[in-house]
Amino acid sequence: MNHQIKKDDNPDLIEERSKATFDTDAFGAFIWGGYNNLKRRREIARYYEDHKELHDTVPIAFMTREEKLENAYRKASIFENHIKKACDVNNPEEVRYFNWLVYHIDGHPTSVHSIMGFPTIINQSDKEQQERWLQSGENREYLATYAQTELGTNIKKLETTATYDQKTEEFILNSPTVTSLKWWPGNMGHSHNVAIVMAQLWINNKCYGPHPFFVQIRDPKTHKPLPGITVGDIGPKFGLNTTDNGFLKLDHVFPNGTYVPPVHDKIAYSSMMLVRAIITPLMGENLCIGATIAIRYSAIRRQGEIKPGDGEVQILDYQTQQHRLFPQLARGIAFLLAGRNTYNFCNNVLKDIKNGDVSLLADLHAILCGLKAISSYQAELGLEQCRMACGGHGYSAASGFPLLNSNQFNGVTVEGDNLVLLLQVARYLMKRAKEIRYEIRYGQQPSKPNEIYDYLFDDAPKKCLIDQAYVPNYKNVLESFEYLSKKLTLQAYDKLEQLKQRGRTSEVAWNECSVELCKAARAHIRTFLARTFINEVNQVNGLPLLTVLKDLLQLYLFYEVKECMAGLMEDGYMLGQQLHYVKKNIYEALSKIRPNAVSIVDSFDFTDRELNSVLGRRDGHVYENLLKWAQASPLNKHDVLPFHHKYLGRMMEEARQKSRL
Amino acid sequence: MNHQIKKDDNPDLIEERSKATFDTDAFGAFIWGGYNNLKRRREIARYYEDHKELHDTVPIAFMTREEKLENAYRKASIFENHIKKACDVNNPEEVRYFNWLVYHIDGHPTSVHSIMGFPTIINQSDKEQQERWLQSGENREYLATYAQTELGTNIKKLETTATYDQKTEEFILNSPTVTSLKWWPGNMGHSHNVAIVMAQLWINNKCYGPHPFFVQIRDPKTHKPLPGITVGDIGPKFGLNTTDNGFLKLDHVFPNGTYVPPVHDKIAYSSMMLVRAIITPLMGENLCIGATIAIRYSAIRRQGEIKPGDGEVQILDYQTQQHRLFPQLARGIAFLLAGRNTYNFCNNVLKDIKNGDVSLLADLHAILCGLKAISSYQAELGLEQCRMACGGHGYSAASGFPLLNSNQFNGVTVEGDNLVLLLQVARYLMKRAKEIRYEIRYGQQPSKPNEIYDYLFDDAPKKCLIDQAYVPNYKNVLESFEYLSKKLTLQAYDKLEQLKQRGRTSEVAWNECSVELCKAARAHIRTFLARTFINEVNQVNGLPLLTVLKDLLQLYLFYEVKECMAGLMEDGYMLGQQLHYVKKNIYEALSKIRPNAVSIVDSFDFTDRELNSVLGRRDGHVYENLLKWAQASPLNKHDVLPFHHKYLGRMMEEARQKSRL
Repeated sequence: MNHQIKKDDNPDLIEERSKATFDTDAFGAFIWGGYNNLKRRREIARYYEDHKELHDTVPIAFMTREEKLENAYRKASIFENHIKKACDVNNPEEVRYFNWLVYHIDGHPTSVHSIMGFPTIINQSDKEQQERWLQSGENREYLATYAQTELGTNIKKLETTATYDQKTEEFILNSPTVTSLKWWPGNMGHSHNVAIVMAQLWINNKCYGPHPFFVQIRDPKTHKPLPGITVGDIGPKFGLNTTDNGFLKLDHVFPNGTYVPPVHDKIAYSSMMLVRAIITPLMGENLCIGATIAIRYSAIRRQGEIKPGDGEVQILDYQTQQHRLFPQLARGIAFLLAGRNTYNFCNNVLKDIKNGDVSLLADLHAILCGLKAISSYQAELGLEQCRMACGGHGYSAASGFPLLNSNQFNGVTVEGDNLVLLLQVARYLMKRAKEIRYEIRYGQQPSKPNEIYDYLFDDAPKKCLIDQAYVPNYKNVLESFEYLSKKLTLQAYDKLEQLKQRGRTSEVAWNECSVELCKAARAHIRTFLARTFINEVNQVNGLPLLTVLKDLLQLYLFYEVKECMAGLMEDGYMLGQQLHYVKKNIYEALSKIRPNAVSIVDSFDFTDRELNSVLGRRDGHVYENLLKWAQASPLNKHDVLPFHHKYLGRMMEEARQKSRL
Repeated sequence: MNHQIKKDDNPDLIEERSKATFDTDAFGAFIWGGYNNLKRRREIARYYEDHKELHDTVPIAFMTREEKLENAYRKASIFENHIKKACDVNNPEEVRYFNWLVYHIDGHPTSVHSIMGFPTIINQSDKEQQERWLQSGENREYLATYAQTELGTNIKKLETTATYDQKTEEFILNSPTVTSLKWWPGNMGHSHNVAIVMAQLWINNKCYGPHPFFVQIRDPKTHKPLPGITVGDIGPKFGLNTTDNGFLKLDHVFPNGTYVPPVHDKIAYSSMMLVRAIITPLMGENLCIGATIAIRYSAIRRQGEIKPGDGEVQILDYQTQQHRLFPQLARGIAFLLAGRNTYNFCNNVLKDIKNGDVSLLADLHAILCGLKAISSYQAELGLEQCRMACGGHGYSAASGFPLLNSNQFNGVTVEGDNLVLLLQVARYLMKRAKEIRYEIRYGQQPSKPNEIYDYLFDDAPKKCLIDQAYVPNYKNVLESFEYLSKKLTLQAYDKLEQLKQRGRTSEVAWNECSVELCKAARAHIRTFLARTFINEVNQVNGLPLLTVLKDLLQLYLFYEVKECMAGLMEDGYMLGQQLHYVKKNIYEALSKIRPNAVSIVDSFDFTDRELNSVLGRRDGHVYENLLKWAQASPLNKHDVLPFHHKYLGRMMEEARQKSRL
């Protein structure tokens, strides 16, 4: 049953909801990790709803950047009063959810202090420094950004210098070139007053590599930039315009504090991994939000007839619309599940590391890199499909897509460019390929099975079994993905070796194989996503929920087969005839999902605040609210625009006068 | 030789430009249809450059919507004084180019009058009406929008009513429901004062279908909405925010003028087609702009080493970067060529129609629908690849991509949703399939060969010949596309027939085949694009130009093969081994294009105004200009944001005071 049915809602949505073959709360609990989490989400959302001072004054689509920042500043200044009442502050998921409700998707002025600046101070300072900055940082007596990225160079070639002056026993920070300006650090433009600056340490004309320095960039009282500091906002972006990403030029600046050797321990590294582990479920969440908007709207929007005389149909009844939307839904769920799975995996590896066991670190690193690359790009493509599925109205900011998608575009670049990340996965795979070719396993012989990469060492069946009888756990599909991944990995490896034998340096050979290497990386991640989805579904009890999840899984898996079928057929592993079975499975899954589609997206339990979309409203009352939304937009403040008569009005008036002559 | 070399430019660009193996002006003349056109473009661009009053006062990324509109209003009010001096106003391409330079991509307040409102008045009014409105419309004494689209329904089910009152002998226009509100018409929100309203004509309780009515919506003097009119802007959108798309509610409004039977002649229809014919080259131009920005930036941006010790390389040297960008360049050119080709085709069909010959109308219609769908979506995907290729800076508005891409997103929906358009192509193909199955040709036996669809009636070789020796005209690749298109067309047709024999209505059967039908449509358009590109290149004289064009053609064709290879392999037409040849051709083309890449994009001769990108600047001086751009952005007007102390400042100050207690 669908728990979202309310009597004054759009009748099409009520009708859709009444058809649910499963319990939406059971689905919601599956997605959010249990009934208690679902309950807590609702309580937190209720808290947010009840406290109007945390709400936006108008939709942020109507605000200038200055207004966006002011609105976020206002909320930031009262946020701490609320979070302790709304959440268990020791539960990161609750804190994340409350943050999301309050600040939504476009950024806010205290995030980098919380996520990067202050954690760096915790991890990278000695006892004396901690005494000085730990409690005050926790209290937000200052706000610290993390300034690493520079305008023109990459992380390996930072140009900012920190020169130790032996006479005065001080460091002097400098931005020697225009390209050395710190560029992009979040909240550095205006809101934060401290920067943890990564700079090349020079002592006695010798460079000791990049080190972090605690730099007061703005006066604690006046907030004015301090002497030697040039700081500002880097200007408008595609999205994240409520964040003041900044630039910073340092001209003979003395940082606070004394020198501390940098802490490069595995713990610090792993906490960075945890950040990356959070990205994939966020990509999944974004995609599920997009699917929710588009599927609800497709259920209330009618156009054209399929059965003559039956009247206009819901556009969700069109196969093309289902084929556009449902795979996004399935992928969104796959990313959520993979995200949860890797988050747990990450925590386990962290524990292992504390016990001195780093055996799983490389596997984890490769999976995190690859998942981030795949999920961010597929979510981006999928959100665009969702937007297009809403026709013209998807282009309006009222749909929510302009804000959602333009923030999603950030996902493919932030925390590592996708192609660079895929090549890191490929590095991992090439090490495995070498072990396969030389029949050794890396590290010591594994004591326990390792699902993530064991398949690379196993022999898969030489024939694709996809057209065999229906197998509930979809083992044969997963096997096909594993087959392809292993094949592409070994092909790339062999090509690399060949090129090197022909005299290429390894770097040149690597570059010449890089498109193929990326392909192998994608195939490896495909196996991981498919395996995780299958495993998670196999753990579900309760036939109604299991059935609908299997429909989604079926769609997910066969859609993926379709995406890689050329690779499967190339060497005769899969036969052309088997493609028919693949297509049949896809179309069958679309039909099975159709009647439950609205109830599936209802299960995510996204509030209207989270969806931020007139088209995706829970109550389905779209059209009257589109009008209200438009009427409230800034250009309608005046019946006649203030500058009308100065320009267009005058132009028409002069033309009329002229023609009267 | 590259004509863009200037001595103070970025040395990396000078170096790139000095490597050109062809004459950039020859390439430019090929792209823009001759040396004279290229020369005229330069003269018009020079005129624009020399007249500062036509320039934006600040980058539009820094403006609010109100400021954008005011800026465009200002330019509109002086535009007519300039265009006659800058252009031959009888040359649509010159007019389009000058418009583009002045208004750029985000819309402007007189466009719908020129493109749709006024042409409708020309085409759809009788002599008396023309006397009243023709000269005055030409003079811009009024500005007329075209109000067809409604909030909730589709074109076939317009809800706006025009009821004829026999007593008063007048029409009364009404918006009877919220969904009947006119919604989206461009320039209707604030700038235009007349609307050509499409409404269902009712006389004596009988509906005579949609008819256009000339409605004065705002007072000519005061510009205030007239009685019975509710009008305003529909609010912010993904892009096109300099356009005031509007809503309009009519409450017992009397239109001007008397009843005229609607003119539904083929000429009016064909002029609509001409509008659609312009879209494909625009998509091509957008994509070429994106490729220009990304390729120039990739030539000045250095990161990582390939040959150890040789220093950081230009990122354009990475195979992944080439594979990301060069196919976009090839596609952009393919769309430009196809666009020019269909524009000429369109004009020929128009002439035929005037002579009573409509034999090519269906072919043309199908090609225009399909090209629009394919080019708009591929350009969108391609522009996103270009954006991603610029890393983090591609996300900044300084790159130009946020504005360019978010306007491109409009392309997939405007003038017909892409899937709907593809299904129109499929309708055409199904008619051809029936003729093939019944061995008849449509209409009379064709007197002359018809390249566009003849292949459907021919027997292609049963084996893909792609791995045969190098054939300069790429006939074997085109043959493969034709083979696939015909196969998919017949497969879809047979499936449709089968379903109907099993008792489905044609509409239900159509819906169940619609994903496959779209696929067939895409394959048909692929043949058209490939054929046009091949034909155009085959007409080129001059080996240096021909060589570089063939490199681009090679990449274009084999990249397309890669995109459809599963379909080619499915039935054994193409063999797995042939894929190696395909890949080899792709990588080979990438390497051949690499040294000419900057010179190719230089050949487009886009001015910095057109590119609107700090990253894509002709002189390559990117970093210092990024800083200048950022410093000029609105958030940096104040050293300390005006609301800082009210919120964040107070928060930190209170925390400090508290900790002192």
